[in-house]
Amino acid sequence: MPRRVAGPEIERLIEILARLPGLGPRSGRKAALALIKRRQELLFPLAQALAAAGDKLSECRICGNVDTTNPCTICSDATRDPSLIVVVETVGDVWALERAGVVKGRYHVLGGALSPLDGVGPGELNIKSLFDRLASGDVKEVLLALNQTVEGQSTAHYLIDELKRHHIAVSISRLAQGVPIGGELDYLDEGTLAAAISSRRGV
Amino acid sequence: MPRRVAGPEIERLIEILARLPGLGPRSGRKAALALIKRRQELLFPLAQALAAAGDKLSECRICGNVDTTNPCTICSDATRDPSLIVVVETVGDVWALERAGVVKGRYHVLGGALSPLDGVGPGELNIKSLFDRLASGDVKEVLLALNQTVEGQSTAHYLIDELKRHHIAVSISRLAQGVPIGGELDYLDEGTLAAAISSRRGV
Repeated sequence: MPRRVAGPEIERLIEILARLPGLGPRSGRKAALALIKRRQELLFPLAQALAAAGDKLSECRICGNVDTTNPCTICSDATRDPSLIVVVETVGDVWALERAGVVKGRYHVLGGALSPLDGVGPGELNIKSLFDRLASGDVKEVLLALNQTVEGQSTAHYLIDELKRHHIAVSISRLAQGVPIGGELDYLDEGTLAAAISSRRGV
Repeated sequence: MPRRVAGPEIERLIEILARLPGLGPRSGRKAALALIKRRQELLFPLAQALAAAGDKLSECRICGNVDTTNPCTICSDATRDPSLIVVVETVGDVWALERAGVVKGRYHVLGGALSPLDGVGPGELNIKSLFDRLASGDVKEVLLALNQTVEGQSTAHYLIDELKRHHIAVSISRLAQGVPIGGELDYLDEGTLAAAISSRRGV
């Protein structure tokens, strides 16, 4: 806005809202306006929801997913198949695969992918906790659902090598080709994700 | 999501975010994910900004605008021309006109428009406070910047009749034709708003 139109608290609210994905300066203002106009139905509930979530968020001690319970909702779900672990890079990938609704097992969230240039080595990822889970013996299949990027695929190769080197008796699978080269899971439609899961292949 | 994927606090956060203008269920999830991933830079600052704004928001006792100071930022701005009052329906209209940056004066926010079917009569709008301001004698022009809808134009006609009936010595103007029929101020581009302000005409 060319001149100061509203108090600093409102300007600050607009500025933060504008940083959310899918919003910008203009839609940030629209969102702020809606919050201001509908304080009882929107502003206060949103403030409470953020505080409630923010207070409780933690990284799941089993899988590395971020949730308000620990172990996370998925690790706590007794109806999930304990024999399958789907290894993903981020929480966003868990959400994307859950939207497709085709994963019967549980997840392991690495927290990123190997990227020597960015200083991300095996020690920076949740890899040790993955091998600890595999050592329990319940797991029969590890599905590497990593992004089709250089980093994602390097990470997949690294994990395959490590699994073989440690003689861990699980079958290893990857997502079917069908995921577009250079694409990221979080941006794919449910149909493509479902197809890639159902036609996954052994390595 | 087909199954419960995250704790109830996160589901609630997604649900509220999805109700913001410009967001929906899918972009609500994206926004929630960004907030969860970037707690320090986004989630906690947004929670604080909402709390700070929510605590302080009030309706300006002079003009009816909603702001975190009272009188509001615009009424408190000594550089504004005291001889012009721009009458608008909502806070969103103030923000829209301020984006165009062509109003030298201050505003009066009615809080809506006359709508007998919805039970909105003159007593439900900030009309008495407008006449109190006009009684002070500083105001030389009242610009009726109401929406080009049936309700907005009925409200304009009502205000013109009342101003004349009370023999209030101000010139009355309206936005120039050029505002699209059926359009609402909040949705117009700055150029159209600027043109409508600069070619306003007496009635």
